[in-house]
Amino acid sequence: MAPVPQRILMGPGPSNPYPEVTAALVHPVLGHLDPEFLSVLDETCDRLRTVFATANALTLPLSGTGSAGMEASFVNFVRPGDPVVVGVNGVFGERMCEVAARHGAEVVRVEAPWGRPLDPKAVLAAHPSPSVIAVVHAETSTGVRNDLAPIGAGKGDALFVADTVTSLGGMEVAIDTWQVDVAYSGTQKCLGVPPGLSPLTVSDRARARLLPRPSSWYLDLTLLSNYVTSGEGGRVYHHTAPVTMIGALHAGLGRVLDEGLVDVWARHEACGRALQRGLEELGLELLVPEESRLFQLTTVLVPDRLPDGLDEAGVRRALLDHYDIEIGAGAGQLAGRVWRIGCMGHTARPSNVEALLGALREILKR
Amino acid sequence: MAPVPQRILMGPGPSNPYPEVTAALVHPVLGHLDPEFLSVLDETCDRLRTVFATANALTLPLSGTGSAGMEASFVNFVRPGDPVVVGVNGVFGERMCEVAARHGAEVVRVEAPWGRPLDPKAVLAAHPSPSVIAVVHAETSTGVRNDLAPIGAGKGDALFVADTVTSLGGMEVAIDTWQVDVAYSGTQKCLGVPPGLSPLTVSDRARARLLPRPSSWYLDLTLLSNYVTSGEGGRVYHHTAPVTMIGALHAGLGRVLDEGLVDVWARHEACGRALQRGLEELGLELLVPEESRLFQLTTVLVPDRLPDGLDEAGVRRALLDHYDIEIGAGAGQLAGRVWRIGCMGHTARPSNVEALLGALREILKR
Repeated sequence: MAPVPQRILMGPGPSNPYPEVTAALVHPVLGHLDPEFLSVLDETCDRLRTVFATANALTLPLSGTGSAGMEASFVNFVRPGDPVVVGVNGVFGERMCEVAARHGAEVVRVEAPWGRPLDPKAVLAAHPSPSVIAVVHAETSTGVRNDLAPIGAGKGDALFVADTVTSLGGMEVAIDTWQVDVAYSGTQKCLGVPPGLSPLTVSDRARARLLPRPSSWYLDLTLLSNYVTSGEGGRVYHHTAPVTMIGALHAGLGRVLDEGLVDVWARHEACGRALQRGLEELGLELLVPEESRLFQLTTVLVPDRLPDGLDEAGVRRALLDHYDIEIGAGAGQLAGRVWRIGCMGHTARPSNVEALLGALREILKR
Repeated sequence: MAPVPQRILMGPGPSNPYPEVTAALVHPVLGHLDPEFLSVLDETCDRLRTVFATANALTLPLSGTGSAGMEASFVNFVRPGDPVVVGVNGVFGERMCEVAARHGAEVVRVEAPWGRPLDPKAVLAAHPSPSVIAVVHAETSTGVRNDLAPIGAGKGDALFVADTVTSLGGMEVAIDTWQVDVAYSGTQKCLGVPPGLSPLTVSDRARARLLPRPSSWYLDLTLLSNYVTSGEGGRVYHHTAPVTMIGALHAGLGRVLDEGLVDVWARHEACGRALQRGLEELGLELLVPEESRLFQLTTVLVPDRLPDGLDEAGVRRALLDHYDIEIGAGAGQLAGRVWRIGCMGHTARPSNVEALLGALREILKR
């Protein structure tokens, strides 16, 4: 087999994994009930609590990608007919609507233009008594930050569900302070771990509202909590935990916490600022106004004029083929109109920013 | 951090991974839309077709463990009120009933004693026109083989769903010949890959009956097939594929096919026979009669008399602590009454059989 190319992963995820993560992937495999593995699992959950800034007992890595976390966040709480308010200003808000609707929710959409943040007041005013309010913190399709704190403060009796897939580990996430009830994330963005797991946390308030027998057995949080958190009767087997990926997540979280959360956020911010300044110096226009722009994921408008023989996809292909650098295409209504450039996890280093800016300069000046 | 112990994994899964799999885990991470990754994905699906012995176009690794495969096999096909016949002679048949019921099926149970195979005639006679008939091929909780061919031959208009979690890669599985419509498996048993993915295959006949918008978005096989199999409009992103685990599965399947499927089955059989003979020589009694006994997973009755100070769990603990060998406890109604000894994937080697038999001899003679 040909060697696998070593890419600089600057798309919307996966990012390059931290070296500590790669090292953990080849640890000997342990059984999912081995006491040695269970202590790794316990420590992983503790580390997740630190990164989520929560004391939530029900905090765990779900055995699926971020989208499985999204589904778990609805299927365990939403009954047919429940009013669910969803903020929509990108692909992942749209996806939340679809997932909630499939579980029978009466979805109330609150929209903002793609590339602009949601208005928290509009979200809170959308329904007098929603059972759930759901918002994406960092919209991976646009590079916009939606502020969670005002929604948590005004949620009333609703459960507040937040998508933190692209924010966790790359910028401040404060689940308890912001009064988020259910948050899910992914491993392959700012945590610098390959894709495959969804860190998830559930407040005690939300835990009291878990449906007793949701339609999904695989994502049933009551059954999962009986395995992950050892209750009085000990742990109860649910499914075979993906031990290798959990070991990788354990290592990635360890790396992030060793570096220090605040320092990791600052590193993402510094790289994002340098990238965004460099892109503007190349004459490119950014989609999102500075005040709601993410640092870890930047959306650039594809220029009207490109060098002869190159189109939007051609630029990405040239980056990949000549420089081994991956950037992302636009998604949803932004398909063909933007590039998405991630600088997350172990990718978030100044050398990668310079490599991309230099390569892009060469390609665009042709 | 203390070094992770190197266990011989002889429980009901995970097994020890093949060395080729461990090597693949540290390949550089690729994006889920990178052409280099997509060729690995395509080849993985091709290899799965070979191992499943099927020409099914819709054959893919699902982004969850075997239980996610089980759920996908029901949520995509079962409408509320559909009669679903389930063969039940162990934990995983029971689990199928629960999963089907959560999706609204009217479950018709056909039972056999745990440790004995299902009667295919009884399964076929249980309902005049079931929409689904579901059976576990290799019951991980008992070590029994249920024959699939007679059920496929007599299924009539029903879809035939088979759990091949513990059989795939360790004994003959012939999806097309046996007329199985939907089969799911796990990576962590006879394929010698860590847990985390569920190989799944769907016949064209079943594909024509996919529900257009099943309650699960994450496990929606229509959406998944739009990403995995490139149709006319190219691939459509669904969720971020777990690229590292797919690379590991690719390597595990490559190893199995390089060795040769028939030879791999023979190796599992030879190890299982040696293990079972050795256990009987130690005076232990096997749960399952020889004619329906699996080779890759053996269920042993816990003897009435154990050395002073040892109970069922104590024997397992002694194996783990003194010999770094994991075996499994009984599950469900066999909890406390049996041990489950797996010899699957890279674990299925004569030296491991001898190590376990020797260790068990030492512990039991105390």
